[in-house]
Amino acid sequence: MSTTNEKKPIIDPFGTTIIEDYNHLYEEFGIQPFRPLLNQVPNPSMYMRRNVVFGHRDLQCVLEAMKNHKDFAVMSGIKPTGEFHLGTLMTAREVIYFQNQGATAFYCIADVEAYEDNKISFERSQKFAVGNVADLLALGFNPKTGYIYQQSKERRVQDLAIIFGRGATLATMKAIYGERHIGLYLSALIQAGDILMPQLKDFDGPKPTVVPVGVDQDPHLRLTRDLAAKFRRKYNFILPSSTVHKIMKGLDGSPKMSKRNPTSYFTLHETPEAIAKKISNAFTGGRDTVEEQRNFGGNPEKCPVYELDMYQFVEDDDKVIQTYHDCKSGKLLCGEHKNQTTETVLKFVKNHRRERRKFLDKAREILQNSQT
Amino acid sequence: MSTTNEKKPIIDPFGTTIIEDYNHLYEEFGIQPFRPLLNQVPNPSMYMRRNVVFGHRDLQCVLEAMKNHKDFAVMSGIKPTGEFHLGTLMTAREVIYFQNQGATAFYCIADVEAYEDNKISFERSQKFAVGNVADLLALGFNPKTGYIYQQSKERRVQDLAIIFGRGATLATMKAIYGERHIGLYLSALIQAGDILMPQLKDFDGPKPTVVPVGVDQDPHLRLTRDLAAKFRRKYNFILPSSTVHKIMKGLDGSPKMSKRNPTSYFTLHETPEAIAKKISNAFTGGRDTVEEQRNFGGNPEKCPVYELDMYQFVEDDDKVIQTYHDCKSGKLLCGEHKNQTTETVLKFVKNHRRERRKFLDKAREILQNSQT
Repeated sequence: MSTTNEKKPIIDPFGTTIIEDYNHLYEEFGIQPFRPLLNQVPNPSMYMRRNVVFGHRDLQCVLEAMKNHKDFAVMSGIKPTGEFHLGTLMTAREVIYFQNQGATAFYCIADVEAYEDNKISFERSQKFAVGNVADLLALGFNPKTGYIYQQSKERRVQDLAIIFGRGATLATMKAIYGERHIGLYLSALIQAGDILMPQLKDFDGPKPTVVPVGVDQDPHLRLTRDLAAKFRRKYNFILPSSTVHKIMKGLDGSPKMSKRNPTSYFTLHETPEAIAKKISNAFTGGRDTVEEQRNFGGNPEKCPVYELDMYQFVEDDDKVIQTYHDCKSGKLLCGEHKNQTTETVLKFVKNHRRERRKFLDKAREILQNSQT
Repeated sequence: MSTTNEKKPIIDPFGTTIIEDYNHLYEEFGIQPFRPLLNQVPNPSMYMRRNVVFGHRDLQCVLEAMKNHKDFAVMSGIKPTGEFHLGTLMTAREVIYFQNQGATAFYCIADVEAYEDNKISFERSQKFAVGNVADLLALGFNPKTGYIYQQSKERRVQDLAIIFGRGATLATMKAIYGERHIGLYLSALIQAGDILMPQLKDFDGPKPTVVPVGVDQDPHLRLTRDLAAKFRRKYNFILPSSTVHKIMKGLDGSPKMSKRNPTSYFTLHETPEAIAKKISNAFTGGRDTVEEQRNFGGNPEKCPVYELDMYQFVEDDDKVIQTYHDCKSGKLLCGEHKNQTTETVLKFVKNHRRERRKFLDKAREILQNSQT
């Protein structure tokens, strides 16, 4: 596949210069650029080092807490409507990263949202939830210092939603979520409860809290920060912080991976053959002909296969940089790169699934003991 | 005070002919007239006999259950934003009436609604709630066969609200409640939960349920019946029934009693002097002069003092009828009538308050043991 856009040669394996796509977010919404903070992070994650985490809100107070070994929290979750995919993999790893840096970690199974938004009954989402929690544990989440719960059973987030209801105008909700049924708005308030629950007395009170989000999820965080400010007097909330990561391109060349479009992504639980086939059929940043590619090099900036390496599956920064330059120089062709990436992905997936099996019983136990 | 509207002589102590005010409700909203059912009610209440209860929805299934000693429920409640007044007195007595006829009675302290609608914190509404529950018990509610609870602590109604959220469109909510914050809509869903909770397995499953409402509350019931139909497959709900009562005129001549207008009503806990003064200053259906009144008679149909007798404070039907005719004939003048009614009301209030004091501890106990 080809592209002929040559307007400027970008030599930037981690796409920091492509941030212009995100510039309007800084200006319009007040997301702050992450890069200036990087050298203050004691032990930056792969996503941070590679500028996948490109923005944040108020992260300084979290970094302060990390540095000074003070109490802080990390919060994220999953809507249990299916298997772990590359998006949920990203937030799960971010949660685990902050947990390893000393955060009390909260991971929410958003079964109320799955019901309100996707009409998945609690009984049905419970089945996905077991797998999702096993995935999380297999990735390294430590349940001893972390709290995993379901929205439908966690009364404290529901209580917060009831309190927050008075502060949520219809205009705000419509602006963020569009014209939806009341249950969808309710689930948004419960999500605000999820983000602020770590600051309740039951969890030792107000503390810096970081919510790793994809850039498309930032509106939820704005709503929650707005509610935290409105109810600060009652709860002494510290406004929650966020890290903001970029969204991976669809494997098929679409702007983002989407469940509606199964060739755009894969889950960690598809067959190796299915995954291999999706990578093999993926759009790339390659040229029309081998000759052109040898002469002019490829466009890793536009390539979802390169993103698989860079965002998720190649741990070693130097190796990613090497791939970038080998593509740019025309040394690495798309077919060869796809084979490499397929091998790396399948190795990860195979290993992950073996690990995950060990955690299924534990996952069931955690969900059964979940607070009601 | 005077009125000169003479267009037709109405001889109807219980205002059944004045129902034309309510005719559009039958046509427009499907409220059914109560009068045709009266002779099927084994032991009709004062409100029923006097056509204060003028309408209903699907009451037949409740009457069937009453007749055949089958399981049925009655449900109502109070928003704990103040003391018992004449409106809450009416629904409380209706609940107690059905409880005495064999219903399992549910009485809800709508503290979530008090918060969402009136910004009364749960802590503050708790104080009103103790008094409200003591009032209810003093009026004859039997807590052994009835269930009194707070919305904020009753997880089953909150769970129902979450489920119902998916069935509540923004258009419906706006049509009933206007453009409000999300919390107000949430409290409406919780109220639907209140009405349908008696049909959950915890309370022995689906059963006819009657909700005594003032005519202004009918939209809530329509919403709940709509939700009951939408979620019938999941819960096997029987659509809830209602009795619909008329709204008392304001003492000051305004169309209805209103908290915003303190001279329009009194609570059961104002001083005897304050109550006496409000009755003494009340608007009446009297003529401009004594002479006119002796000649033409008064207009009890327009008289809030007559309504005090008829709706609430004179137990004996014959006595009410006598007052009606004595007014109509010009025999009873407004001053004398006001004195009689004041005496009756103050006697009731004094007795009620003495009884209520005995129930304050019990009320506290009930609220403390309320489910969380």
